[in-house]
Amino acid sequence: MPKYVYFFGDGKADGSGKLRPILGGKGADLAEMTLIGLPVPPGFTITTEVCRYYYENGGKFPEGLDDEMEKNLEKLEQTMEAGFGDPENPLMVSVRSGAAVSMPGMMDTVLNLGLNDKVVEALAKKTGNERFAWDAYRRLIHMFGDVVMGVEHEKFEEVLSQVKKEVGAELDTQLETKDLKKVVAHYKELYKRETGEDFPQEPRDQLKRATEAVFKSWNIPRAVKYRQIHRITGLLGTAASVQTMVFGNMGETSGTGVGFTRNPATGENALYGEYLLNAQGEDVVAGIRTPQPISHLAQDMPKIHSQLLKIKDILEHHFKDMQDFEFTFQNGRLFMLQTRTGKRTAFAATKIACDMMDEGLIDQKTAVLRMPPEQIDHLLHPTFDPKAEKKVIAKGLPASPGAATGKAVFDADTAEDWASHDEKVILVRLETSPEDIGGMNAAQGILTARGGMTSHAAVVARGMGKCCVAGCGALEIDYENKQMKVREHTIKEGDFISLDGAAGELMLGEVSTVEPTLSGDFARLMEWADKFRKIGVRTNADTPHDAKVAREFGAEGIGLTRTEHMFFEGDRILAMREMILAEDSQGRAKALEKLLPMQRGDFEGIFREMAGLPVTIRLFDPPLHEFLPKEEASQREMAQSMGVPQETIKAKVQALSELNPMLGLRGCRLGIVYPEVYDMQTRGILEAACRMKKEGVEVLPEIMIPLVGAAEEFVALKARVMKIAKEVFAAEGLEVDYLTGTMIEVPRACITADEIAKEAEFFSYGTNDLTQMTYGFSRDDVGSFVPRYVEEGILPKDPFQSIDEPGVGELVKIGIEKGRKARPDLKVGICGEHGGEAESVKFCHRVGMNYVSCSPFRVPIARLAAAHAALEEEAAKSEKK
Amino acid sequence: MPKYVYFFGDGKADGSGKLRPILGGKGADLAEMTLIGLPVPPGFTITTEVCRYYYENGGKFPEGLDDEMEKNLEKLEQTMEAGFGDPENPLMVSVRSGAAVSMPGMMDTVLNLGLNDKVVEALAKKTGNERFAWDAYRRLIHMFGDVVMGVEHEKFEEVLSQVKKEVGAELDTQLETKDLKKVVAHYKELYKRETGEDFPQEPRDQLKRATEAVFKSWNIPRAVKYRQIHRITGLLGTAASVQTMVFGNMGETSGTGVGFTRNPATGENALYGEYLLNAQGEDVVAGIRTPQPISHLAQDMPKIHSQLLKIKDILEHHFKDMQDFEFTFQNGRLFMLQTRTGKRTAFAATKIACDMMDEGLIDQKTAVLRMPPEQIDHLLHPTFDPKAEKKVIAKGLPASPGAATGKAVFDADTAEDWASHDEKVILVRLETSPEDIGGMNAAQGILTARGGMTSHAAVVARGMGKCCVAGCGALEIDYENKQMKVREHTIKEGDFISLDGAAGELMLGEVSTVEPTLSGDFARLMEWADKFRKIGVRTNADTPHDAKVAREFGAEGIGLTRTEHMFFEGDRILAMREMILAEDSQGRAKALEKLLPMQRGDFEGIFREMAGLPVTIRLFDPPLHEFLPKEEASQREMAQSMGVPQETIKAKVQALSELNPMLGLRGCRLGIVYPEVYDMQTRGILEAACRMKKEGVEVLPEIMIPLVGAAEEFVALKARVMKIAKEVFAAEGLEVDYLTGTMIEVPRACITADEIAKEAEFFSYGTNDLTQMTYGFSRDDVGSFVPRYVEEGILPKDPFQSIDEPGVGELVKIGIEKGRKARPDLKVGICGEHGGEAESVKFCHRVGMNYVSCSPFRVPIARLAAAHAALEEEAAKSEKK
Repeated sequence: MPKYVYFFGDGKADGSGKLRPILGGKGADLAEMTLIGLPVPPGFTITTEVCRYYYENGGKFPEGLDDEMEKNLEKLEQTMEAGFGDPENPLMVSVRSGAAVSMPGMMDTVLNLGLNDKVVEALAKKTGNERFAWDAYRRLIHMFGDVVMGVEHEKFEEVLSQVKKEVGAELDTQLETKDLKKVVAHYKELYKRETGEDFPQEPRDQLKRATEAVFKSWNIPRAVKYRQIHRITGLLGTAASVQTMVFGNMGETSGTGVGFTRNPATGENALYGEYLLNAQGEDVVAGIRTPQPISHLAQDMPKIHSQLLKIKDILEHHFKDMQDFEFTFQNGRLFMLQTRTGKRTAFAATKIACDMMDEGLIDQKTAVLRMPPEQIDHLLHPTFDPKAEKKVIAKGLPASPGAATGKAVFDADTAEDWASHDEKVILVRLETSPEDIGGMNAAQGILTARGGMTSHAAVVARGMGKCCVAGCGALEIDYENKQMKVREHTIKEGDFISLDGAAGELMLGEVSTVEPTLSGDFARLMEWADKFRKIGVRTNADTPHDAKVAREFGAEGIGLTRTEHMFFEGDRILAMREMILAEDSQGRAKALEKLLPMQRGDFEGIFREMAGLPVTIRLFDPPLHEFLPKEEASQREMAQSMGVPQETIKAKVQALSELNPMLGLRGCRLGIVYPEVYDMQTRGILEAACRMKKEGVEVLPEIMIPLVGAAEEFVALKARVMKIAKEVFAAEGLEVDYLTGTMIEVPRACITADEIAKEAEFFSYGTNDLTQMTYGFSRDDVGSFVPRYVEEGILPKDPFQSIDEPGVGELVKIGIEKGRKARPDLKVGICGEHGGEAESVKFCHRVGMNYVSCSPFRVPIARLAAAHAALEEEAAKSEKK
Repeated sequence: MPKYVYFFGDGKADGSGKLRPILGGKGADLAEMTLIGLPVPPGFTITTEVCRYYYENGGKFPEGLDDEMEKNLEKLEQTMEAGFGDPENPLMVSVRSGAAVSMPGMMDTVLNLGLNDKVVEALAKKTGNERFAWDAYRRLIHMFGDVVMGVEHEKFEEVLSQVKKEVGAELDTQLETKDLKKVVAHYKELYKRETGEDFPQEPRDQLKRATEAVFKSWNIPRAVKYRQIHRITGLLGTAASVQTMVFGNMGETSGTGVGFTRNPATGENALYGEYLLNAQGEDVVAGIRTPQPISHLAQDMPKIHSQLLKIKDILEHHFKDMQDFEFTFQNGRLFMLQTRTGKRTAFAATKIACDMMDEGLIDQKTAVLRMPPEQIDHLLHPTFDPKAEKKVIAKGLPASPGAATGKAVFDADTAEDWASHDEKVILVRLETSPEDIGGMNAAQGILTARGGMTSHAAVVARGMGKCCVAGCGALEIDYENKQMKVREHTIKEGDFISLDGAAGELMLGEVSTVEPTLSGDFARLMEWADKFRKIGVRTNADTPHDAKVAREFGAEGIGLTRTEHMFFEGDRILAMREMILAEDSQGRAKALEKLLPMQRGDFEGIFREMAGLPVTIRLFDPPLHEFLPKEEASQREMAQSMGVPQETIKAKVQALSELNPMLGLRGCRLGIVYPEVYDMQTRGILEAACRMKKEGVEVLPEIMIPLVGAAEEFVALKARVMKIAKEVFAAEGLEVDYLTGTMIEVPRACITADEIAKEAEFFSYGTNDLTQMTYGFSRDDVGSFVPRYVEEGILPKDPFQSIDEPGVGELVKIGIEKGRKARPDLKVGICGEHGGEAESVKFCHRVGMNYVSCSPFRVPIARLAAAHAALEEEAAKSEKK
């Protein structure tokens, strides 16, 4: 017969932390704390296997369980030197649920078991606190009635309110013993009315029924739903832990509190926390009384305090990490109720990891693993002053982290204008387009009503390291009157607003911000991370400035330079428009000639900043209509300045308009239909490379052709690149090594990757578009259903934020396998937004990519995530052995 | 040493039709004809392996080839009893190219080899025709100079023009012998000037150099490009056939002609063709003289005529198919120059297949294989009277076959109005939308300026069996003034135009049409096809009428009923709009209640027509904004009729507008966000099924959930379907067996098909959308590049017309494999437009689908294509054995 019940108490335990699958998280932790000598109220845990048996056998418990429980209960009575239901010296217990994976608040608990009409008197006598005893009894009837018998919680509340009204009490604490006795009497009547039986007076009967109720709560709808949404599968069920009750509310030498072994905000190595005297855990949470800082215990209860200091050390030496624990002291005796790894700020995480490494508690690898990659974001962006008051009026998507405060403006020109007069502005738009780049750059932050995590606003803002809240559906923007309504608030141009990009919050008014400071600890951690990671980290950068920032953050090259943004600045848009309006190839070539020197200059600047590192430049990608004005007035203006009839422009805009531009004439399709554009860009890249090489700068250009879906597209365009290269090298009098490769962003490219890799020298996964096409989701339009999908658990997460492994990821894998089959040394990277998201970076490591590329501010995150990936793999391998 | 040269002549041949890879098409056919005793001018073929050797060895011929050629030439001289270059009794030969796959006109030929200054005199004497001899000689110098030596063709033409001018001749035929002698003299001068040498007088030298030129022409740019575009790979090279020259222009007992063993227009079993006396092949083509029907030969040359009648039988008994052959008779002696399988009309194809089967020439399987599936289209749709005059003014895509004539109208309402007064109209639109359905139905044909082969207009027209020309870019439509410009033509409302849907042509004016008649032969062929095919054929039908038509065409059920079209008729659009404008679930449910009885009625009608056969009904798919008016005026009208402020409608239209509606809120996404719609439809389907069952109609409903990309979507929606089913069955008092399945149209669905198949009982591939997403092509926007892609050989064909096997097809395969792994008996079909295209149907057979589904008029095509697929597979298998 398997062992169903595990005892813990008095420094000994049948189980340990390793038995988490069968003891559940709570049971395992209680055993572990007991084993390391912490004062845990003794008890025993009934395993998750009992839960499974119960469900597999139509609600029956395994044979022998009763005996085993009885034996353990007797052992508990001996340990506590008290009797369960003993009318002289009573023992009281709780039954709590706890699965191997935490499901906070989803399942049931029953406290104060063991009380009955007689025992309550004994408890009053033993504790000398009659009110406490009757309060405990009425809580038991309420909880038991609710959890075990399904009597509605509200009905008990009604009875309580009625009594309070009768005696003129406002708070529960104002009820005296006689009032509580009355409550108990009424509760018992209610119980009988609702269940058709008397409240059970036999403690063992109480315990048995409460235990069954806990096991039953594994399958109540809210718990099932929770597991479904969080995709928790493969568990046996919940365990049930029966534990001796201890009370912090038995007088002035009793109390309860929460402690941290180090400061979770700063990382300082000192006991931290707070407590309340004569209180129960729920009082700390309720917030009626203000808890004291834990250091005060040194005066209030010096023995307890020094005990806690010792426990701090024991915990850290055992768990090798900062712990967050709950404790209670009853009549001067300390009990530990729970411990777990403590949450901490990014700053504290950095410090704690480095300190513990220096203290010899952990090694470098562990230190690196202790820093959650996504938290680094907080170290790099401004944050709001924690003390500042915030009035959140709407929520959108947390598109780019950081905190920003400024005056609301509703168009890019005003943003640039005001910013040039040293005004801080926040640019508010329905959605942004490449025309808004200048204004976005000038603004402190960007707020949009539409668009998702990879919308134009989000992508550009992250690239700039600028705060952005996107897809904030509550905004009703009125461009005409330069104002917006957000529910009952009207915000006019010039009114102050604030954005929290990490939380996706919009606030009214000015909120003061704190600039980030990068500590030496951060640099040490990143250095260790680089030592362990195996995958390269590049950056997505379109300007020399971005390239410089990224290099400072540790980027090892550029994985994506988008060339289209370069066509919006100043006069360039004019030449661009001239090109679009040209009637034939010659006309286009003529207009493009004007752009050539400017493009060459752009590339020279980038090559210089990235000297010695590879630079991947993507040829023109977006549809041409993005460069023409949509509104009549702007079209008129353009017509006048270019000296062409307005009709011509209108006709061109109409001719270029598309029902689904995402799936239209763009990328390499444009390159094939209008080859002059790619010719000019290739010339610009290679001329710049030659000239930099002459200046002694080491250049490693990689020309990337976007949106290839068929090998034939690539073949045709590569031939043109080679032709231009030959011309340029002849004219410049020297040659530069360069690669020609493609972005893999169309599902068909993954499926036919073997054909493409025969010609392409590198692949760079554009997982934004690949996600769009694999799911059939327009990233600009998913706001109407993806949030609901995530909420209902239909999607585990937004696939534009973290790569969808079973779908998009599978295509990525197919593409790499097929590609490397055709060209074993194929260089493979990723340059979609996923390249800077920790889970996705780990995925890229696992599928064998050579590098990830992400926006400059996410480079440290990617470096750390890459190190985690390598270390996790190492751990998994050594576990297999 | 391998054999490089294959002789043929006098009833014997070294090679045969089986050696096509090394003899090329021409060489193999000449050998074959010789072997079956036809009078072929003797000669020999130099193999494609020589061509390969030549290229692999830097332009050198294999050792021993010279000897082998000399031996064969000597044999030829013996056979012909004449000498090559013999000044008494000369033999003349041609050298022609010919690869294993036909590349018409791409490679070179040299005629009249063996002539020189002396031989020309001998030829004159031997033939008694001096003019003929000198004309042959000047042609040799011209052709040899051009093909072998690269002298520009135009330079020879100039010399000829000059001489004609001098003697006052307009036509070549007006030149006399002395003039031709002058031409020869000038040609020789030109030749020397351009090449630096004299025209070679040694016939063997001429032959050797001409042969090399033919091998060289394998790699001239136009030939390379041709192979690239037509994706011809794996060939060794071209062969070169050296053949005795025969002449049809040696007097009134000479002549040349073209024959068919049966009438290619009607299929009648009688010799058919035409000829010219005293003429060469090129004279027939030039059209200066009108050829005579072949029956006249019975008077002109009775011996030749009776010889041809015998040859007709020999050819048909040997090739078992109708042949198209070329012949020449020289001084009363008949020579066969070529034979090949003859092209024929669909009508003739049907008759010939059945007649040959009855005559015992072929069996049923062969008869079925003889009918090209795509040709059936011609049998089902009206065609233009072949005698009518046509003025084609523009070309578009051949979106739906048939011929139509009518008055041009530019909006659907006018189309319906005029048609109700018995006017024939053609509906002309920029593009059509579901609002135009009524007008499309009323029109004879549909013409659009935009959109591809699977645009709304194309899909709907094919469904209706109605002629449609789509994406006709030359149209400049002016809705305001109800007219359009097509280049220099202006067509006003009411002007007659005509459309040829199979050719994609727009014509001015009325062109008379001929209605199709289905012969008994057609029915016999289809019956045989059904016997052999293994895959089912269903139809896409949205109405009882379509279902009836399709069933008559042999459909075995419905593979796709689109339910959204049902929401446009009459009052339904009002209820639909009320639903869209509703603020909450209750409001939506209330509006949908009005639609329920109508939907139920639709389904009852369809179930009745399809009694005993499965009916797959797709739940609502399109985005909601398709049901709201886009123009301000229509919005105002809608506001008035619904009694809501115009602002409300405008706001709703804006809220629902999407940047890429193809990738937005539609399909099952709508089903999840607005579950009321699917609930109502499910209720309608199952209530209709129950009521029909009560009437004794056998119903087999299959509920299809569109656009599923994640198994969780399907799970959530299937649960609702099951819930409604339970309610309906309880209310109706009986149960109906039904299936719940999904459309596979998102790449992710293919990749995760195993998960989806755990819950879905059938898959139906929606390859229109799957192609869009796999390629990233919006079918509405591909007009700007796909035609160019096809033209340049980047795409072998439009992937919306015929399934893209390496890309989309691979995903289909992955989906089927994964799906059947999870559910071995998974029913799999296709309901995209590809389901009615022959090559795609064959693909569906090969990947193991259970059925294809297509528009009613394509059902016979699919039946035949399915039979071809099965028979081809059978043939491939027996070949392997």
